[in-house]
Amino acid sequence: MSTYQQIVLASRPQGHVSPGNFRLERVPVPVLQNGQILVRNHYLSLDPYMRMRMEDTKSYAAPQELNAVMIGGTVGEVVESKNPRYKPGDFVGGGFGWSEMGVSDGVGLRRLDTSRIPLSAYLGAAGMPGMTAWYGLNQVIAPKAGETIVVSAASGAVGSVVGQLAKLHGCRAVGIAGGPEKCNYVVNELGFDACVDYKAGNLADDLKAATPDGIDGLYENVGGEGFDACLARMNPFGRIALCGLIAAYEDEPTVLKNVRMLLTMRLTLRGFIISEHMEFWPQGLAELTGLLADGKLKYRESISQGLRSAPEALIGLLHGKNFGKQLVRLID
Amino acid sequence: MSTYQQIVLASRPQGHVSPGNFRLERVPVPVLQNGQILVRNHYLSLDPYMRMRMEDTKSYAAPQELNAVMIGGTVGEVVESKNPRYKPGDFVGGGFGWSEMGVSDGVGLRRLDTSRIPLSAYLGAAGMPGMTAWYGLNQVIAPKAGETIVVSAASGAVGSVVGQLAKLHGCRAVGIAGGPEKCNYVVNELGFDACVDYKAGNLADDLKAATPDGIDGLYENVGGEGFDACLARMNPFGRIALCGLIAAYEDEPTVLKNVRMLLTMRLTLRGFIISEHMEFWPQGLAELTGLLADGKLKYRESISQGLRSAPEALIGLLHGKNFGKQLVRLID
Repeated sequence: MSTYQQIVLASRPQGHVSPGNFRLERVPVPVLQNGQILVRNHYLSLDPYMRMRMEDTKSYAAPQELNAVMIGGTVGEVVESKNPRYKPGDFVGGGFGWSEMGVSDGVGLRRLDTSRIPLSAYLGAAGMPGMTAWYGLNQVIAPKAGETIVVSAASGAVGSVVGQLAKLHGCRAVGIAGGPEKCNYVVNELGFDACVDYKAGNLADDLKAATPDGIDGLYENVGGEGFDACLARMNPFGRIALCGLIAAYEDEPTVLKNVRMLLTMRLTLRGFIISEHMEFWPQGLAELTGLLADGKLKYRESISQGLRSAPEALIGLLHGKNFGKQLVRLID
Repeated sequence: MSTYQQIVLASRPQGHVSPGNFRLERVPVPVLQNGQILVRNHYLSLDPYMRMRMEDTKSYAAPQELNAVMIGGTVGEVVESKNPRYKPGDFVGGGFGWSEMGVSDGVGLRRLDTSRIPLSAYLGAAGMPGMTAWYGLNQVIAPKAGETIVVSAASGAVGSVVGQLAKLHGCRAVGIAGGPEKCNYVVNELGFDACVDYKAGNLADDLKAATPDGIDGLYENVGGEGFDACLARMNPFGRIALCGLIAAYEDEPTVLKNVRMLLTMRLTLRGFIISEHMEFWPQGLAELTGLLADGKLKYRESISQGLRSAPEALIGLLHGKNFGKQLVRLID
């Protein structure tokens, strides 16, 4: 194999992301320098944050550059090494982006043990999404046993971990998800106490029924009407971990009307980005990997096949078409 | 004097507060029991929180009861005592409400020293409003020298203290107030670096000009468009102390559109009620009283004369007609 494929950002989205914002390229496999390794990526992670990085607006990170390989987390296998610390066959996690292969000097790579959990899990519950869930729940919400924790996008890569960890803390875990299939999964497979289908048309009433004692902790991934409906159910001294606003990335900005609850219920809200809290990753990942290996943390993946499928898979993710962690498989 | 006047809440406001929501009553001066004191109130404090307490909705405190004396902070003089710890002529602060006199067993009263600062200051910068400013700034915003702190209702009892304390911390202090007279006062008398007149019609542009380095700490008293405009100027890791939403108490609820900034700028927002943080009062009041006595903290009062004037004075306060701390003088 003397060439491989990658996808670059060709243009910034105007409104919704479209396949035309991306361009597939074929590039030569580079000759390794001393100290370098060549990695064949097995899976690419697709995540909501990518949408914000595609824009050229003030945000938490520099925008994705045009005509550069799209950013993204990857897991793969070392296929060639001029670095004494790695040998062919080693599995590594990195950020090689939307690319079948990647070259690295090893800095920032994570060596992955596939004897206990599958390789792809390191892009989900044992990776960035899992850490995002772990940090937001433990460090922002800090749940106490008996409290009610609500999480939106509950069947997704982050939300599914939030609710399962909340149950392990002895909390009542309530999800919000779109459609009966996802809601059934959240309750019957993941073990949440309840799940509200925001597409059913009775969001406020259904949320009230699912949270008879109000909401003590809200893990917000979505924004939109669900966020506002949850605000109205918050208990005094409730905590809100603001992790994402996927509903607003492509459509109308989230507008909050129940702002008064922030004052009258003396709420604390904190927005965060998990990459700024690396000091918690060793502890969090060790816990998550252990829970996965012990079967105490379940997850589901939506896998699309081949690099070429990545743009449509990302677009689907941004509109809730995925079910669980969205991945792209880059090997046959 | 065998009788005195008090004002009770006669009905709950439907929309705006009106004088008809109150009723003046004349009641007999009670005969003291052993351990009790009789206080003649000199000043009644009017504060925005009273508006929320007049409603019968879920909030941080039980609603003001109908046909009971309106709640409120007071300062006054002991005129009769059957309590060995107090003697006639002692000055005390308490919560006797909208009433010319009050009876107490002394529990919860604050003994006031009028040798260093005037009696009325204990209802303002050296009282609850000052503590509200002190706590929100020091414990929620936690400003660092060089940061930009913005406070709304900047000429008011709380806002004026927030900005002056921020200056003492070495911050850039920017106020928001209504009209050129208040803005001039905020800059030229209180020493803020700038003040934006929200009535001038260029809120976003004027705020941008006044905060060239963005906003690191927002002390929000008002809500409404100003809150949203400030959100758009927040810097990464900015802190928002949510203390009041006076714009929404009588009119349209505050609607926030720049919700995305909470996430992208990783902001922390906390709503608080100062009465729940009594552990900070001794330290805070000592600092504030010292600053007042040393002339390092300035304030202004709007004083209406006589208990009968209290309803109109409260209505004026809710619509920004006061200039500085709103008081009712109960003595001739």
